[in-house]
Amino acid sequence: MKNNEVIELYGSPVSNCYNTVLAALRHKGIEHHQKHIGATQDAGFLLKSPMGKIPFILHEGAYISETSVIVAYLDQVFSDKPLFPGSPLEQARCGQLMKIVELYVESPARRLFPGVFWYLHNDPLHVAEVRPVIERGLNAVELLLQQNRFLLGGPKSGAGYYFYFSLGLAETVCQQQYGWDFWEERPLMRELYEQLGKLDFMIEISAQRDGAMEGYLAEKSAEANSD
Amino acid sequence: MKNNEVIELYGSPVSNCYNTVLAALRHKGIEHHQKHIGATQDAGFLLKSPMGKIPFILHEGAYISETSVIVAYLDQVFSDKPLFPGSPLEQARCGQLMKIVELYVESPARRLFPGVFWYLHNDPLHVAEVRPVIERGLNAVELLLQQNRFLLGGPKSGAGYYFYFSLGLAETVCQQQYGWDFWEERPLMRELYEQLGKLDFMIEISAQRDGAMEGYLAEKSAEANSD
Repeated sequence: MKNNEVIELYGSPVSNCYNTVLAALRHKGIEHHQKHIGATQDAGFLLKSPMGKIPFILHEGAYISETSVIVAYLDQVFSDKPLFPGSPLEQARCGQLMKIVELYVESPARRLFPGVFWYLHNDPLHVAEVRPVIERGLNAVELLLQQNRFLLGGPKSGAGYYFYFSLGLAETVCQQQYGWDFWEERPLMRELYEQLGKLDFMIEISAQRDGAMEGYLAEKSAEANSD
Repeated sequence: MKNNEVIELYGSPVSNCYNTVLAALRHKGIEHHQKHIGATQDAGFLLKSPMGKIPFILHEGAYISETSVIVAYLDQVFSDKPLFPGSPLEQARCGQLMKIVELYVESPARRLFPGVFWYLHNDPLHVAEVRPVIERGLNAVELLLQQNRFLLGGPKSGAGYYFYFSLGLAETVCQQQYGWDFWEERPLMRELYEQLGKLDFMIEISAQRDGAMEGYLAEKSAEANSD
């Protein structure tokens, strides 16, 4: 298998999905170049990423989008240091963790981005309906960790990186929208988050994110004020 | 690897996710028992499926939930007749197809279930915001098929089964909510849908679904009228 071509990672360091792919590249020690760009719905962009979203990668002439798909692809093409380690059942537990965070925590939290990050207004209907969905998702994550302690102590995984950056984002949304600290009463979730945050490359990626976020918020504020 | 214990599949044949797992089991010729149950938020149920959702499977003493995770697990434990065939890149294309349908077509369509299936009311805000999301998702699917014709003619895949049952459901939602036939102007999507619908086991699973759906709708109607 040819895997000697340097991977290009396209997207923005403010994106939790971009940062998850970056962590996967760092975890596996895969050579890569970061290409910082924003998402658009331009026809040319859609040819590379059909939903017009970032991140996407370019590897050996092919563009691949969707975070979980990119992570699985990297894990398969570069076999060292697996991102989904362990038995098929343990891999499934990682998969469940990633899926629950994506679909039941991050996805609803994104519906509150306009009011939280874009200086726009969140409809009260959205504000009311999102919180119970996120609560159920977080309870499911805590339960899964209770039942599968190996997810805490074991080798770091692609699911862990997704968890880290996704919950970091959802935490900001919940704090700002509801004044809600969702780590309370979820000690295992917090433990995993803190463990992951101590890895050298996670510290570096988070620092890049925080720097980029300042510029991003200033830009969104200017956009909102010009409307 | 022990894989001689018969798999139990829990859930309802009205669920597109249940039917996707069932198709994966049939595709691979894995012995299984169907256990028809509904989803609940009971504590005992959550121990088996942390979000309280169906489907989930029981295999060798372990309960596993989340459709895409179950399908990946089955594919790994039972190696015959892969559900994600081909090169790593081809597998990634299947992954993108499945992901786009799940996150950008089915997930928004589900927000209209109350008005479409449960004899309740959909808020105009939801009705207005869901359609453009689904349109973008469907356009992305069509584009992905244009760029990757092998997804049409090649071996059947787990992504295809997901596509089939998920779009079957989204189609009903879009027809009933908007009077919108989304197959129009998306010929490749329609071609893949029709191809998959001709497989013997897909015909059987769809027939079981349609029978169960009648009972389900009658039950929802009675619930709505008793409120």
